[in-house]
Amino acid sequence: MVDLKADTAVFTSLESEVRSYCRAWPTVFTRAQGSHMYDEGGRAFLDFFVGAGTLNYGHNNPVLKRALIEYLTGDGITHSLDMFTGAKRSFLQAFEEFVLRPRGLDHKVMFPGPSGTNAVEAALKLARKVTGREAVVSFTNAFHGMSLGAMSVSGSGARRKNPGIPRLPSYHMPFDTQGTDEEPDFRWFTRLLEDKGSGFPHPAAVIVETVQGEGGINVARPEWLRALDRICKRHDMLLIVDDIQMGCGRTGTFFSFEEAGIVPDIVTLSKSLSGYGLPLAVTLLRPELDVWEPGEHNGTFRGPNPAFVTATAALHAYWADAQLEKQIFARGEQTEEALRRICRSTKGEGTSMRGRGLVWGLAFDSPERADAVRTRCFERGLVIETAGPRDEVVKLLPPLTCTADELDWGLDLITRAVTDTA
Amino acid sequence: MVDLKADTAVFTSLESEVRSYCRAWPTVFTRAQGSHMYDEGGRAFLDFFVGAGTLNYGHNNPVLKRALIEYLTGDGITHSLDMFTGAKRSFLQAFEEFVLRPRGLDHKVMFPGPSGTNAVEAALKLARKVTGREAVVSFTNAFHGMSLGAMSVSGSGARRKNPGIPRLPSYHMPFDTQGTDEEPDFRWFTRLLEDKGSGFPHPAAVIVETVQGEGGINVARPEWLRALDRICKRHDMLLIVDDIQMGCGRTGTFFSFEEAGIVPDIVTLSKSLSGYGLPLAVTLLRPELDVWEPGEHNGTFRGPNPAFVTATAALHAYWADAQLEKQIFARGEQTEEALRRICRSTKGEGTSMRGRGLVWGLAFDSPERADAVRTRCFERGLVIETAGPRDEVVKLLPPLTCTADELDWGLDLITRAVTDTA
Amino acid sequence: MVDLKADTAVFTSLESEVRSYCRAWPTVFTRAQGSHMYDEGGRAFLDFFVGAGTLNYGHNNPVLKRALIEYLTGDGITHSLDMFTGAKRSFLQAFEEFVLRPRGLDHKVMFPGPSGTNAVEAALKLARKVTGREAVVSFTNAFHGMSLGAMSVSGSGARRKNPGIPRLPSYHMPFDTQGTDEEPDFRWFTRLLEDKGSGFPHPAAVIVETVQGEGGINVARPEWLRALDRICKRHDMLLIVDDIQMGCGRTGTFFSFEEAGIVPDIVTLSKSLSGYGLPLAVTLLRPELDVWEPGEHNGTFRGPNPAFVTATAALHAYWADAQLEKQIFARGEQTEEALRRICRSTKGEGTSMRGRGLVWGLAFDSPERADAVRTRCFERGLVIETAGPRDEVVKLLPPLTCTADELDWGLDLITRAVTDTA
Amino acid sequence: MVDLKADTAVFTSLESEVRSYCRAWPTVFTRAQGSHMYDEGGRAFLDFFVGAGTLNYGHNNPVLKRALIEYLTGDGITHSLDMFTGAKRSFLQAFEEFVLRPRGLDHKVMFPGPSGTNAVEAALKLARKVTGREAVVSFTNAFHGMSLGAMSVSGSGARRKNPGIPRLPSYHMPFDTQGTDEEPDFRWFTRLLEDKGSGFPHPAAVIVETVQGEGGINVARPEWLRALDRICKRHDMLLIVDDIQMGCGRTGTFFSFEEAGIVPDIVTLSKSLSGYGLPLAVTLLRPELDVWEPGEHNGTFRGPNPAFVTATAALHAYWADAQLEKQIFARGEQTEEALRRICRSTKGEGTSMRGRGLVWGLAFDSPERADAVRTRCFERGLVIETAGPRDEVVKLLPPLTCTADELDWGLDLITRAVTDTA
Repeated sequence: MVDLKADTAVFTSLESEVRSYCRAWPTVFTRAQGSHMYDEGGRAFLDFFVGAGTLNYGHNNPVLKRALIEYLTGDGITHSLDMFTGAKRSFLQAFEEFVLRPRGLDHKVMFPGPSGTNAVEAALKLARKVTGREAVVSFTNAFHGMSLGAMSVSGSGARRKNPGIPRLPSYHMPFDTQGTDEEPDFRWFTRLLEDKGSGFPHPAAVIVETVQGEGGINVARPEWLRALDRICKRHDMLLIVDDIQMGCGRTGTFFSFEEAGIVPDIVTLSKSLSGYGLPLAVTLLRPELDVWEPGEHNGTFRGPNPAFVTATAALHAYWADAQLEKQIFARGEQTEEALRRICRSTKGEGTSMRGRGLVWGLAFDSPERADAVRTRCFERGLVIETAGPRDEVVKLLPPLTCTADELDWGLDLITRAVTDTA
Repeated sequence: MVDLKADTAVFTSLESEVRSYCRAWPTVFTRAQGSHMYDEGGRAFLDFFVGAGTLNYGHNNPVLKRALIEYLTGDGITHSLDMFTGAKRSFLQAFEEFVLRPRGLDHKVMFPGPSGTNAVEAALKLARKVTGREAVVSFTNAFHGMSLGAMSVSGSGARRKNPGIPRLPSYHMPFDTQGTDEEPDFRWFTRLLEDKGSGFPHPAAVIVETVQGEGGINVARPEWLRALDRICKRHDMLLIVDDIQMGCGRTGTFFSFEEAGIVPDIVTLSKSLSGYGLPLAVTLLRPELDVWEPGEHNGTFRGPNPAFVTATAALHAYWADAQLEKQIFARGEQTEEALRRICRSTKGEGTSMRGRGLVWGLAFDSPERADAVRTRCFERGLVIETAGPRDEVVKLLPPLTCTADELDWGLDLITRAVTDTA
Repeated sequence: MVDLKADTAVFTSLESEVRSYCRAWPTVFTRAQGSHMYDEGGRAFLDFFVGAGTLNYGHNNPVLKRALIEYLTGDGITHSLDMFTGAKRSFLQAFEEFVLRPRGLDHKVMFPGPSGTNAVEAALKLARKVTGREAVVSFTNAFHGMSLGAMSVSGSGARRKNPGIPRLPSYHMPFDTQGTDEEPDFRWFTRLLEDKGSGFPHPAAVIVETVQGEGGINVARPEWLRALDRICKRHDMLLIVDDIQMGCGRTGTFFSFEEAGIVPDIVTLSKSLSGYGLPLAVTLLRPELDVWEPGEHNGTFRGPNPAFVTATAALHAYWADAQLEKQIFARGEQTEEALRRICRSTKGEGTSMRGRGLVWGLAFDSPERADAVRTRCFERGLVIETAGPRDEVVKLLPPLTCTADELDWGLDLITRAVTDTA
Repeated sequence: MVDLKADTAVFTSLESEVRSYCRAWPTVFTRAQGSHMYDEGGRAFLDFFVGAGTLNYGHNNPVLKRALIEYLTGDGITHSLDMFTGAKRSFLQAFEEFVLRPRGLDHKVMFPGPSGTNAVEAALKLARKVTGREAVVSFTNAFHGMSLGAMSVSGSGARRKNPGIPRLPSYHMPFDTQGTDEEPDFRWFTRLLEDKGSGFPHPAAVIVETVQGEGGINVARPEWLRALDRICKRHDMLLIVDDIQMGCGRTGTFFSFEEAGIVPDIVTLSKSLSGYGLPLAVTLLRPELDVWEPGEHNGTFRGPNPAFVTATAALHAYWADAQLEKQIFARGEQTEEALRRICRSTKGEGTSMRGRGLVWGLAFDSPERADAVRTRCFERGLVIETAGPRDEVVKLLPPLTCTADELDWGLDLITRAVTDTA
């Protein structure tokens, strides 16, 4: 039996207090496979968090694992900045063949650095360079990253209340009010854009998540996205979709914006792109926006070849046909059905649900209840996170590759946790 | 024989014009071992660039490779945000045992995201949070990264001339004038700090590289660093040393500031930290600065366990004794000697040299000459880069693990390239 | 007969191109009395512009003139910074007696400098100091002044498109949509304020004109102002009413906000305050906001005693009883009636009207028409200006002291000019 | 006998706490003539402050008074925005004839609003518009005004420590170190400008006072000003001289920069320009900088005709010949001599002196001593102010028109106050 105290000593003594997830799940994980993680005491946990959407294909997916070990064994280049490598070429070819071309997209691919926030920084920088304008419109409860530029378009005020943080101009608009009868409402935004005396600067771009993950699984309606797209076109603003968490199949299609039928000018991808938890990010841009000078945006880890190798394997394995999309659809219905049952059975307690594809939120009136559900789930062997401005939403991000039985088991654990905490 | 045209087509058609290193070295690399990279035609290149200082222990170092493949084979956790994992614990223990404790440092370790620019963003954010002040002083020709916060303390104006980029207040001071007889001169800085009516805001921190890599291998004298440290203490400013490129042994000791005998309040490390080219970064902070709230700075790739595994192996292999330090010292002398010969033989052509440890710069009067030397080197089988505000400096970053013969061979190629381009 | 060419030579050769009103009315004015100005050729012009609302009591009002000349003749202090003077004391006493006390206001009086923009700068600075917050919400088509702080809350984008101008964060909201059936709509504003994850910073204050003058005589409805006041109270934001142009009786009461029954936290006054065209401004603040340190906001011309003298005379003459208010009301009805006739007679040409008290706008579809009306009026002997985001509104600002006959005459000239330009 | 308590009640109850000069000189002034002010108790005070340099020609100068009363009596236009008026024409003609032409200046004249801070705001705006650049370099202990733009180039940190005040980028350089043997030193500034990798933005302009008044009577040496002028020319930065306090003869010539033989691109004037304490300011600009669009910078009080009238009278009376300049020179020598005696007699107490023309500072080691001297002077019948970053400098600004006897008397009072407070 593991002595937890002894084993976490170095974390509490040496690691900064900024650590957070380990506080919710206080055990030491060592091994993982498919939909499960295992701690060093050998206990199994079903994972409905998957690295905040980074492990859509499950942990240590065997197809990707085989490709990765083979590459490393053969002394393939591991780090290459933005030199040409064989692994990068294979990735670009697969990305074009399985992602861009089938969707009629002619975007160019930029490697902005290894993390999502790098991709957002590059997207903002490019939008500003192309237009010569500074303002970027973003939405309430948006989350785009923690570097200064990305933070300035994020919604969470709490994280930025620090008096020393430079105050960048930011332009926040209300996100879609899904679940209401209200028409997509851009009257105010339109007035600010159209009134010559509004004082509102002509924005370079609008940045949006089609489903806000950290914001609490807020789902924008397709008609809202289309209206936003039309406003962007009419007012010559670039539309940036941040698909870092919702891309790579999470909502049922490779890109989350496919359902709405829009084509963003710039798209950011990261998290599940490498498919194996290895840092990788891309910024996609319409070819006419590719006005970068060589090296104008650079960085060290823009050529993480092991990540290219697993990303390429994932594209071949999951996006060459419609198999995975169908499975996400089925699992999504299964999830929706279970959540509906929970909501029905907790009528009067203020529980509600929302989501699409395989990303779902179960919202409680009180953050305490959501927290209690999370804790109860962990005790029962399920890793699951909360989100939303008050952390009042239990967020379901099962692996896209989970079996119907695994999903059932997890949904059952959640149902019981909700009952336990009533 | 490889048909280059066909093989690079997808790069030129699909990858953004922002790509740059591939323009200097137009071949497709596929394999690497130790001090050499190989392209797909099988040609070998001695590597004096090592991923801009990311591969200090050589390519695919066998000790690290063994540990990594074993970990992956055993389905070790690959991605864990900031949960507790066994691999992270081993890394923290090794980092304390081989890096912090022997140097009498009690800094805490923060995982700010996978890349250097994330580490800098976290350092700046922390300094501002701790002090409640915004201004951060940086130096001419500094380079700290490409996200908005890091860019605001970097020197290169060219990259920021874009009219749409938000203009953050920044406070640039002249870097040390090494190679002159001038005393370390902080008179202006001191006047601005001490005059109550200076209008100069009390800075939160000063951020400095002890050797500016991208800036052209500008070496700060130890007495200059000590004077800077004293000013920081006297005026209650935090001292941040950005050791992303110069740490991990590049200057002869693990940290580049050890020679000066100073202890920075905050240190950033990345590049060679994982030792295998895998993205990893840390921000070190004095314990009394650890005022973060849980999750106040977060991000997806803060638990890249494969990188922890190789980093741990590297610490055990290279920093448990003084072996590597001695070797760096010897190779440094060998390099200095060769460069001295080049400078002597090119007397009157304005060639000069500078450096310490195993980072050296050979400066030419004209950027064209430096560029020609780089090109000639590549033709002869040596990968080497230029740096400096006008790209007029040939920058030598051999692997710390290179043999004396490999180093000789590379220095010989440089010598010939200089002769060829006279 | 005057030779205009010779007489304006020094203006065109020596004065900056920034001059503007002289372009609309190309003659040299030398004398003025009551509702009329006279040029050096002796031609009389009825003045419906009165210095953009600076001469509400007419030109060289005899009551004020007498007091002023007497003061100057007696070698009264002319300039006193913020020392105590007899003239200042009399002004403060009169302001309290005739303005503050009758309206139940206990505001303190601050002398922020001689012009309206100084008063706005002081108001913004105070709101930020009191709350420790930076954001100030303002409205589309607002105009608050031309110094950097005042400009950042003004609506006119055109004036700030200059790439070198520092870009201050600003928060513009749509102004009331008077003349429509829409309910006062603060839904978006409320959402941004109430959603904890909105990213919208908690504002220090809201600054508003009850009637936008430069913006095109946009009249906020009392219920809109009351709703705004309630939002400010509920969200702990200070309400600043900029009454520089609309105060001093222009809308029928001394302050323009009296009709709505609200009590702003901060009020700015200038223009007609001295009553004689002499520069004078005050910022009024609730006593609990008076957290200034002595001298924290200063400036040279905060003690313009001649202006105090005329201001005091004006208060005694016009605000000791309800006489003037009644007259403004009567003249307002007279104006409204005439404009209604014009609108009726130009049915189908897109003419519309708005206003209250003695400030009225006659809006045309095209700026060209408005410009033509202004020009035609001048030719016929009436000085009148245009306003609005496209300068499409003819703006009527007759002296509050004009006679019914003078007003009739001016309205008749406008009517004819509208006909002339059909 | 006056009952002070009763008479100042309305000030302390109604005026904001921001009032400051009245705290130093707690009496109610009512009348003034020449070099003297009189309080309502009939007590005379010699005035060595003259409205912070606003009354260079003395109080209620009879020549100006006559012109002003005549103008007002004849119902001359008092307020005209930027329309053509006879009074303005006379002012422009006189300004050209007596100020610009004799000095070989071809600057154009802009009326930016009635106060100095308006003139500075216009100067900064113009420099940014012309160059398209934002950064403006200013100096330690500079004071340029209290509106947001002017404040951002002022030195006093204390006034801007308010957390809510928008933080504008500002670039402060050490002012000349007069009274030392140091060569004018622009090495740092030059390095920041010339190093392409400095990160220092190319400034639009440099703004400087040749003698810092509020900063503590810091006198820039002519060679320092010339060196600064050369740097501006070499690096294509506009040179703005803020002559608001030091212009209009204060340093012995009309402009303070004449001694150095430089010609600034932009000059701001205010304070003593009207000569009678009436608000008036101008911004002078080289003709090629006159790129303003009509009305691009506007404001209400840009046509204060009574001020034009007194300004014109002052130019005719004092700048048509060299009489006044000679007198300032003589009075300056007289002052210098007296101060030298004070410094000699207080040897060892850390007293020092500086100045030129008729602006002089007597610096003490401790602010308390300076404050005591000021208080003692007031008790003895002399109004005099302190300045400097710690208010440690007694500042002498006698009327330029004072008699030798008046000056002697004042200097004698200061001498005694110094002795009294030893």
